[in-house]
Amino acid sequence: MGEFDLIAEYFSWPVQRATLGVGDDCALFAPAAGQHLAVSSDMLVEGRHFLSTVAPERLGHKALAVNLSDLAACGARPLAFTLALALPKVDRDFLRGFALGLHRLASAYGIELVGGDTTAGPLNICITAFGEVPVGQALLRRGARAGDRLWVSGTLGDARLALEVFRGTLVLPGADFETVRLAMETPQPRVALGQTLRGVASSAIDLSDGLLGDLQHVLKASGTGATLDRDAIPRSAVLARQSAAWQQTCVLAGGDDYELLFTAPPAHDDAVRTAGAAAGVAVTPIGSIDARPGLRVVDAQGRPVLAELRGFDHFA
Amino acid sequence: MGEFDLIAEYFSWPVQRATLGVGDDCALFAPAAGQHLAVSSDMLVEGRHFLSTVAPERLGHKALAVNLSDLAACGARPLAFTLALALPKVDRDFLRGFALGLHRLASAYGIELVGGDTTAGPLNICITAFGEVPVGQALLRRGARAGDRLWVSGTLGDARLALEVFRGTLVLPGADFETVRLAMETPQPRVALGQTLRGVASSAIDLSDGLLGDLQHVLKASGTGATLDRDAIPRSAVLARQSAAWQQTCVLAGGDDYELLFTAPPAHDDAVRTAGAAAGVAVTPIGSIDARPGLRVVDAQGRPVLAELRGFDHFA
Repeated sequence: MGEFDLIAEYFSWPVQRATLGVGDDCALFAPAAGQHLAVSSDMLVEGRHFLSTVAPERLGHKALAVNLSDLAACGARPLAFTLALALPKVDRDFLRGFALGLHRLASAYGIELVGGDTTAGPLNICITAFGEVPVGQALLRRGARAGDRLWVSGTLGDARLALEVFRGTLVLPGADFETVRLAMETPQPRVALGQTLRGVASSAIDLSDGLLGDLQHVLKASGTGATLDRDAIPRSAVLARQSAAWQQTCVLAGGDDYELLFTAPPAHDDAVRTAGAAAGVAVTPIGSIDARPGLRVVDAQGRPVLAELRGFDHFA
Repeated sequence: MGEFDLIAEYFSWPVQRATLGVGDDCALFAPAAGQHLAVSSDMLVEGRHFLSTVAPERLGHKALAVNLSDLAACGARPLAFTLALALPKVDRDFLRGFALGLHRLASAYGIELVGGDTTAGPLNICITAFGEVPVGQALLRRGARAGDRLWVSGTLGDARLALEVFRGTLVLPGADFETVRLAMETPQPRVALGQTLRGVASSAIDLSDGLLGDLQHVLKASGTGATLDRDAIPRSAVLARQSAAWQQTCVLAGGDDYELLFTAPPAHDDAVRTAGAAAGVAVTPIGSIDARPGLRVVDAQGRPVLAELRGFDHFA
């Protein structure tokens, strides 16, 4: 099968909203009047962002989900995406599954594959996703202010827990493993929440590299510090059954959570809860933004927790 | 050096036109009113799209140039791009050179790096480029009509000739090799020509996979056939000194030319020449579009040339 057959068979979906999709030199589309285009690009490499054991369908889901999560963090509504794919060989089972997972998630959000590239090479998936957000309403990292409350969506740490099982550092009962493996392999981007938080949150970021590291990006961009209540960080029942040490590692430095971390003034507490309810996602306060620089991690009693953990860094 | 330091040191250029560039979850920008966004995404893999012998600066140039070439083929004006980069290790010499080549070409077109991703992994470069084109004026593959003349910009075949030297199938004098190597490693996207051809050309495509293969995309999209005059295809002085067989292979199935192949009604001959002159690029008629399906390659005397050559296909 040649490159063009491969594109035709697996990746030429009809476009509706875009003017021109797969099959020309460029895709053509436009955000609506008064909207900015929000663009996110993520590259997934085997062993770094997924394991060779992942089912192709889940990989297709995840490759798009991590980009939609970036759009969500900006409060953008997804529109379209491009896919560039390097494959060691043409593997129909892989392609069928991958395309299915991709298509299912794209369909759930009504977005279109508008272009891209395929080539032979070590497995590599690069998706660039496009959304639109009303001019001036995007949620940015730099908007956190002293006195704001710090919030997170969903629960944190399950993906890291699953990774540790794959690494052999801990063992889970089969059903528990399946639960956390699903969290790792099919993250649910908080697309609806990002949009309901527009005008409510003062800053937002998606959690991809671990809470501590990603929070530090917000603090640096905003020129603030924060106090984080370790014990308030929401976690699944499976994670809550693990040792205190594993719980701390997974919630603070898990990575691959794809939840939204955001800030809002306390006067917006009700609006935040309403935004979460409207999006069907739990939102939990986990700390506060301080004028004083630095990130202080404390326990439920307010005692400092020594946390030398840093956000996951792909070259660290 | 961590991932974030790497981005900060090499890839955080100030943005002017975009609202938000590198350093948040998404880039934010918009095409001007009445303009469509044109999007192209290309993935470059070592051994397929470049050789390990290429200087990093030239690789930076080429990775962006191949995307700008796609924008040119649509008649779009480049605006911005994202870069996703997988690197086996942090290599400062490589990064410095790569970023320099990228930056020089970007600056030449006044475009901005607005976002992207870096990760550890087998060397892979994925750039997604954005341009704008007035709604309804994009040059598409599907616009060729019977009776149109077939045109090409610049000269074809030098990149393929250089590749054959690297492959050891032929030898060139040093100065000739440097000339064709430059064509292979630092293609010049025909950005100005693409824009001057708006309203003049009936269809366009950029030549990346070889003239025969790319022309067939146009014919398929347009539902037409064509007659191509092999001997009219412009070639450099270096290529013109090679054997007739090598000349034919290089001009018909070279690949990596990054010239524009386009069609226009004969009534537009003068306008085509004016568009070429305005863009400072030679444009040469090389055949005609036929109502009769199929691609006929003939010599200067109109005799059929048996050409079973097909366009380069990355999985063939």
